[in-house]
Amino acid sequence: MKKTEQSIQRCLTISTVQKILGGKWKIEILYYIGLQNVRRFGALRRHIGGITESSLTKQLRELESDGFINRYDFKEVPPHVEYTLTDLGESFMSVLEVIKQWGDLHLK
Amino acid sequence: MKKTEQSIQRCLTISTVQKILGGKWKIEILYYIGLQNVRRFGALRRHIGGITESSLTKQLRELESDGFINRYDFKEVPPHVEYTLTDLGESFMSVLEVIKQWGDLHLK
Repeated sequence: MKKTEQSIQRCLTISTVQKILGGKWKIEILYYIGLQNVRRFGALRRHIGGITESSLTKQLRELESDGFINRYDFKEVPPHVEYTLTDLGESFMSVLEVIKQWGDLHLK
Repeated sequence: MKKTEQSIQRCLTISTVQKILGGKWKIEILYYIGLQNVRRFGALRRHIGGITESSLTKQLRELESDGFINRYDFKEVPPHVEYTLTDLGESFMSVLEVIKQWGDLHLK
């Protein structure tokens, strides 16, 4: 049965997911931190081709503030900072695996 | 065992997924077309709060060119255009359901 427009609710979950993951590099960043154990800024930047330093900084800050990653500063000289997943970030890894399996199957 | 940086391959699938779905509104658009049967431009715009006409136009064109949606022009006056999922778009709906279930469970 065709839904009437009035019966369709705005989906807040999808809207939130869109806001969090809609960033130009979010899925890739979470993939490398979570599934490839890439923890350092420089290494992330090398793996994600084409991302600028300022863009990676911004996206990492957003992922931290959205509760997906932890930033740990070892307070060393030269600076040593590592990024790891929070529990929320970990919970997303099963979704990321499903996304990757779908992509492997359906995207050239 | 910790992976050495050299052993980590750039993941082309994730990079492609990121390019296709990283748009600011892609996930939401696919949700309303695919899972809520919203087919018209104006209705999509009303459901996705805050999207401009030009932004929706651009994102729909990209989804069409990436093979996720069909645009059918009824060639009527006034103009009547409907968007529906392609087979590729349909194949993504199971992923979108997983994303939504995860979001319902983990996002406030």
